[in-house]
Amino acid sequence: MENVDLKDVIIDDSFWSKRQKLIKETVIPYQWAALNDAIPGAEPSHTIENFRIAAGESNGEYYGMVFQDSDLAKWLEAVGHSLAIGKDESLEKIADDVIDLIGRAQQEDGYLNTYFIVAHPERKWTNLRDDHELYCAGHLIEAAVAYFHATGKRKIIDIVCKLVDHIDSVLGPEAGKKRGYPGHPEIELALMKLYKVTGNKKHLELCRFFIDERGAEPHYYDIEAERRKESGRGEKFHNKSYSQAHLPVREQTEAVGHSVRAVYLYSGMVDLAVEIGDESLIDACKALWENVTQKKMYITGGIGSSQYRESFTVNYDLPNNRAYTETCASIALVFWADRMLQIEENRDYAEIIERALYNGILSGMSLDGKSYFYVNPLEVWPSTVDHRNDMSSVKYTRQPWFGCACCPPNLARLIASLGQYIYSYNKSNKEIFIHQFVGGNTKVEMDGLHVGIEQKTEYPWDEKVNIALSVDEEQEFTLALRLPSWCKEPKLKVNNEVVDLSSILEKGYAKITRVWKQDDHIELILPMPVEIVRANPNVRENIGKLALQRGPIVYCIEEVDNGENLQSISLPSDSNMSVKFEESLLEGVSVIKAEGFKINPSDSEQLYFTSHNVKAPVEVKAIPYFAWSNREPGEMIVWIREE
Amino acid sequence: MENVDLKDVIIDDSFWSKRQKLIKETVIPYQWAALNDAIPGAEPSHTIENFRIAAGESNGEYYGMVFQDSDLAKWLEAVGHSLAIGKDESLEKIADDVIDLIGRAQQEDGYLNTYFIVAHPERKWTNLRDDHELYCAGHLIEAAVAYFHATGKRKIIDIVCKLVDHIDSVLGPEAGKKRGYPGHPEIELALMKLYKVTGNKKHLELCRFFIDERGAEPHYYDIEAERRKESGRGEKFHNKSYSQAHLPVREQTEAVGHSVRAVYLYSGMVDLAVEIGDESLIDACKALWENVTQKKMYITGGIGSSQYRESFTVNYDLPNNRAYTETCASIALVFWADRMLQIEENRDYAEIIERALYNGILSGMSLDGKSYFYVNPLEVWPSTVDHRNDMSSVKYTRQPWFGCACCPPNLARLIASLGQYIYSYNKSNKEIFIHQFVGGNTKVEMDGLHVGIEQKTEYPWDEKVNIALSVDEEQEFTLALRLPSWCKEPKLKVNNEVVDLSSILEKGYAKITRVWKQDDHIELILPMPVEIVRANPNVRENIGKLALQRGPIVYCIEEVDNGENLQSISLPSDSNMSVKFEESLLEGVSVIKAEGFKINPSDSEQLYFTSHNVKAPVEVKAIPYFAWSNREPGEMIVWIREE
Repeated sequence: MENVDLKDVIIDDSFWSKRQKLIKETVIPYQWAALNDAIPGAEPSHTIENFRIAAGESNGEYYGMVFQDSDLAKWLEAVGHSLAIGKDESLEKIADDVIDLIGRAQQEDGYLNTYFIVAHPERKWTNLRDDHELYCAGHLIEAAVAYFHATGKRKIIDIVCKLVDHIDSVLGPEAGKKRGYPGHPEIELALMKLYKVTGNKKHLELCRFFIDERGAEPHYYDIEAERRKESGRGEKFHNKSYSQAHLPVREQTEAVGHSVRAVYLYSGMVDLAVEIGDESLIDACKALWENVTQKKMYITGGIGSSQYRESFTVNYDLPNNRAYTETCASIALVFWADRMLQIEENRDYAEIIERALYNGILSGMSLDGKSYFYVNPLEVWPSTVDHRNDMSSVKYTRQPWFGCACCPPNLARLIASLGQYIYSYNKSNKEIFIHQFVGGNTKVEMDGLHVGIEQKTEYPWDEKVNIALSVDEEQEFTLALRLPSWCKEPKLKVNNEVVDLSSILEKGYAKITRVWKQDDHIELILPMPVEIVRANPNVRENIGKLALQRGPIVYCIEEVDNGENLQSISLPSDSNMSVKFEESLLEGVSVIKAEGFKINPSDSEQLYFTSHNVKAPVEVKAIPYFAWSNREPGEMIVWIREE
Repeated sequence: MENVDLKDVIIDDSFWSKRQKLIKETVIPYQWAALNDAIPGAEPSHTIENFRIAAGESNGEYYGMVFQDSDLAKWLEAVGHSLAIGKDESLEKIADDVIDLIGRAQQEDGYLNTYFIVAHPERKWTNLRDDHELYCAGHLIEAAVAYFHATGKRKIIDIVCKLVDHIDSVLGPEAGKKRGYPGHPEIELALMKLYKVTGNKKHLELCRFFIDERGAEPHYYDIEAERRKESGRGEKFHNKSYSQAHLPVREQTEAVGHSVRAVYLYSGMVDLAVEIGDESLIDACKALWENVTQKKMYITGGIGSSQYRESFTVNYDLPNNRAYTETCASIALVFWADRMLQIEENRDYAEIIERALYNGILSGMSLDGKSYFYVNPLEVWPSTVDHRNDMSSVKYTRQPWFGCACCPPNLARLIASLGQYIYSYNKSNKEIFIHQFVGGNTKVEMDGLHVGIEQKTEYPWDEKVNIALSVDEEQEFTLALRLPSWCKEPKLKVNNEVVDLSSILEKGYAKITRVWKQDDHIELILPMPVEIVRANPNVRENIGKLALQRGPIVYCIEEVDNGENLQSISLPSDSNMSVKFEESLLEGVSVIKAEGFKINPSDSEQLYFTSHNVKAPVEVKAIPYFAWSNREPGEMIVWIREE
């Protein structure tokens, strides 16, 4: 199966177009200013200046994280995606110039990482475990591929090929090379993208080496630590599971360690497994997928339940008020899910994309695109957050920029490239898939078959998706539409005729096989009453609680609508609920109103008593989780007590 | 009001006698072995060795915390209390010898702290904020007073008087002295104890100085930090509220910072306020008391809800699974409550003593007295505790000894001195109070009046307390019996005649004023059905939950009795409950059995779903909280979901 190329997908959607516009008109320029330290009051970035110093065009010292280069790479990738969906000569000029700068910063031998060029040339390739050289290279490769796809310009591809040649000369299974692999996976999936552009087997083989070598004994991290004569600190801080290097990848069945590292690795594993047809690797990917999505994922698509080392913990440990749920981790989950679809055309994967996208990812950015959450908790009490060290990474207002600015550019590149997650096709089966319901159109070419598809929808607020087809000539093929599992009674009409879904359902897709004609049209009705969702009883935090979901949107309740002490609110499972689209609220969202109860603040000052708490009926107002904290700061919860 | 002297109280009680025996026969010898590094496998203490080195009788380096000396002091205080309630020549010999050692370690000028004598003589009195010199001195003074009371031997009193003279020569309001006060309060209450022995005004005045100076500007901690040319670390770690030095004490109305420090300070404040009749200081103590006990106290009498800096946080922030609730903090709460009774004879204070004693303090020690909890959580899931850094101080099995061994000796001194919390008398009103129901007897002498009181009871398991009086001759006085607020229908008979309680109730005490005769007897009936307790709805963690309490005993449920995933258990508020004393369980405890429900483990592997969780009726078995974790390790919760 192949995704339809980003350039061939036009998004014209009431929900997403404004967000893509935001990325292009606000986020990308804002982030460019940030990379150039031109935003008053924001934490300094120094990223561009680091490249200038590395190129010998500026004096000064390196400043920033060891992985600061990746901020530019992620920005450049976002620019690539943005240019793919809409020409912008002045932006392209800026990008070309910065690519030239990157080229000038690259060393003769191909090495390219400003931290090591400027600050510590003697430490190159001495600490793969911690130093992010391969991580930065990976992001630059992804940027190169995106920019090349958008513009056809090869310069940045040449730069990264030279860099990969250098890496390949240093690392690998051959005698004289170091048998090292990254502490922070990322380059694996990037190399697979590069391989698809270059067809250069070396790129595939380097990826395979990194994946196959991971976790092998004697352990490379120990070997290089010994070479560095490492003192205690590193060892104490680091354990191999933090980097998913505790076992060979094919023996890994439980997601552990740093969640972004984990999911980038799993994504690269799928890419490789699909490319080379490696069943044992596919099995590992499936086991890990099962573990993450059925034991370690918040209802928002957030992953990583501990701020300590930004990590996964144990199964079903999903505290709402200390969720780490980094925006980047949910973005990584989308990357992984998209790749899992390559293994199997199963809606479970596409649904995780939808869940993360509309909830735990979008929550990472304010509606105006100017401030960001790194951490996306499902429960917040500001006064507690301010006074508990174990909640120190939880914020209740978004911030303009971060010293460790991974999430904002990651959001930008994802939203700009949204088009590539909507459609895919499977040539051998003559199948075209619609995974996501986003207004706009695309053209698919499949063995000489030209198919145009147009979606019109007010999704995620409205149940109707109208799909119009255009074909050069009458042809038989299969159109596979995802029927979301949250939708209990989907309806489908082809040219106004109701289609019996039960007979054509396959792994969650309605597969309509017929001879399609010009102007055939499909009406997909996805009724979206408010659903009361409960968690597996092993999730201790959520037992006795419910969450509200409508369509793909997970809801929350905020103090600004419902007063303080939100935990004192409860909803009966048969609560009367109504849904209304409020045009002027939060740039237009559907709001849920539900009949519930709220325990009265205690009349007495007593802390403990044997009387009953008294509750009163209240109207509870819920808004989409992604839109929380766009008004005045206050409490927020997703999981509400069930009456 | 004065407490009846420990030496005049004989405890002969089915609940407490065995525990006092444990302290004397097991804990004190065990701790003596620990102080001497004679326990295989336990963390080294080095405490005695530090004194030997300081005395010039051994070579070697100081080892241990900066406050290691206080371990010996607390042990010696426990020995003092233990000797007060029962002669033991060999123990007294050990104590006399160690007092001699302490004397030899003391320097010519009176200085006495082995850390500074051995390791850093140049740093004496340079960092009152962090260095615990005054804290250690305070504990030694408390030990001295206890030992003197028990044995009449003055040597240790002389040692600490010499030490206090030295302290007084260094610190104080006079020109040429440092205007410093302790980072860890403790010496304040100790000086008041010493003052009552010595009558030396200097001791009172030094206490008054420490309390009055606290929080004054320019701030002493800043002045000494500047003198030390302190670098960033200390400042970052320290804030003044951590040590309750952020404001002058009379302006403090909310409990903040390190909970043990706070409550030791508040105890000293009461002592001083009562002694000098300082109303503004009394008002501060009352405000702080109200804040701690009505906004920041667990139902177990545990205080301090954050492991980070062992501190109080904000009002109503009482997470069960991350409670810090240090055993020492609950012990300190008993000290404070006992002093508050000096301000006002109000049962609220005596009840906090009871609550802490039977729950959050006793839980700190295993039934065999050989292992200890530093932290007493109200909810534990072992697998989560093992994998979450934000629960790193929570343990689910008690440990034999701690590097920072404050809690075990603190428990020893409290239980050994339990007798002093039972009775008090108020000469001016001719009132004798019974605050706690503990079998045994006492003699009170009040203005020539000799009264013997004998309690017989199976408290806390049984409702009956029989009190027999003996008097030299018929006399009129008032006997004030605490009627616990947990008891809704107390009954009282004097010489078999029912007494109408409503007419004699005063601040929670039944005050029986009459001419008492020899062999008058009182029967107090405190019916103790199981009470369902709820928390103030501002306590977010406990909303929708209930706790079981019977008499003064707070109950919990353990995995060993109820299976795993205890949060899936719920109890209806009208649950049928039965109570049974189980002789052979946990050395004899009353067990509650209640009809409840348990949600079945999910049939599906799904993490989220819209179906209802299915529950089944179960018999829930609850045991006293203090006895948890004395069988196989597993889950435990106090707060149970209310059906």
